[in-house]
Amino acid sequence: MNDIQKPDFDQSFQDKLQQLLEWRRDVRHFKTDALPDGLLDHLLDLTCLSPSVGNSQPWRFVSVDDPERRAAIRSNFETANTDALQGYDGEKAQLYAKLKLSGMDRAPVQMAVFCHEETSQGHGLGHKTMPEMLRYSSVLAVHTLWLAARAHGVGLGWVSIIDPEKAAATLEVPEDWRLVAYLCIGYPEEEQVTPELVQLGWQDRQDDCRKVLRR
Amino acid sequence: MNDIQKPDFDQSFQDKLQQLLEWRRDVRHFKTDALPDGLLDHLLDLTCLSPSVGNSQPWRFVSVDDPERRAAIRSNFETANTDALQGYDGEKAQLYAKLKLSGMDRAPVQMAVFCHEETSQGHGLGHKTMPEMLRYSSVLAVHTLWLAARAHGVGLGWVSIIDPEKAAATLEVPEDWRLVAYLCIGYPEEEQVTPELVQLGWQDRQDDCRKVLRR
Repeated sequence: MNDIQKPDFDQSFQDKLQQLLEWRRDVRHFKTDALPDGLLDHLLDLTCLSPSVGNSQPWRFVSVDDPERRAAIRSNFETANTDALQGYDGEKAQLYAKLKLSGMDRAPVQMAVFCHEETSQGHGLGHKTMPEMLRYSSVLAVHTLWLAARAHGVGLGWVSIIDPEKAAATLEVPEDWRLVAYLCIGYPEEEQVTPELVQLGWQDRQDDCRKVLRR
Repeated sequence: MNDIQKPDFDQSFQDKLQQLLEWRRDVRHFKTDALPDGLLDHLLDLTCLSPSVGNSQPWRFVSVDDPERRAAIRSNFETANTDALQGYDGEKAQLYAKLKLSGMDRAPVQMAVFCHEETSQGHGLGHKTMPEMLRYSSVLAVHTLWLAARAHGVGLGWVSIIDPEKAAATLEVPEDWRLVAYLCIGYPEEEQVTPELVQLGWQDRQDDCRKVLRR
């Protein structure tokens, strides 16, 4: 199996990967155009190459297609968002109210990603002292999907202003599945290199995250 | 800012990105060679392009250099690993005992990644109903680092068989930092397309993770 030609990741690929990271974006403004046949399947195949603790592959995908369920999830978001707004005062509250924090109004694909918490896959390896590793593995899958989508011109927006238990009930998933992410997916209305939260003055990038503590 | 030339992610880049995902690997066998000057800094710059809830960028990096602290972390791993072994019987226990689950013996770089749980960055946006979103953002950063490293020929191994509170104490980090990942980083002894846990018969890939539930 390892006789397969090993890849050569040259400078040109490294530069393009950097561009992918720079232009990724969390997208909330979508065109309603459907994705071409087969593209989402291909993106999910790539997603399944994600790392996971003990090779547990605990990510589970739910495509939310039914209009009533979509409406219920959107109402879940709106309730949580109204509640979140109460936590801000003055200018920050005014700004928060103007933010578009979900693309559920137009995104052609809506995909919930769960973690199968009781999976036997992986035989428990690597998540005894850090049980959160299973959920983290589902997060890694979301990031793979995000980057793969963007490389194909497709935008993804992660909606986290949502009650996860209520969403799981709406989607009637097995009891040992925990919602990790609710994703809106489709072609973006605009390509942007600057995060919308930076553009709109909510939160600039800062340098704390770049410092390395030496120990 | 958006007058910048938009990138063109063509088929050739998409193919190479697929190869990157296929050849990523969780590495436990390292060469002891140091990374070239500046490479780790560059990888961390790329890592800071990761998505984060509310643009909170809560990831915090700790380079573990001190031999005594390295020894303490390694002992933390060994204790947790011995304990984990007790959970298996028969053939699975024999196999577990043979697995190499940490590259701490040789990796030239050891990097702990934390989540700054009480960061004010992001102003609380997006993690009221799902407080785990901050930690998830640090997980996204780890994945970015992983892929960027691999694109530069550098391997990364995520050690999760570790007591996170004890590791935080060893590294004397602020009280509101939570360990998300302990990473071994360096050039891999071998490049592999097949995960080691598959090669050694611990856990094959399976198809459950690829199914899409329709709702």
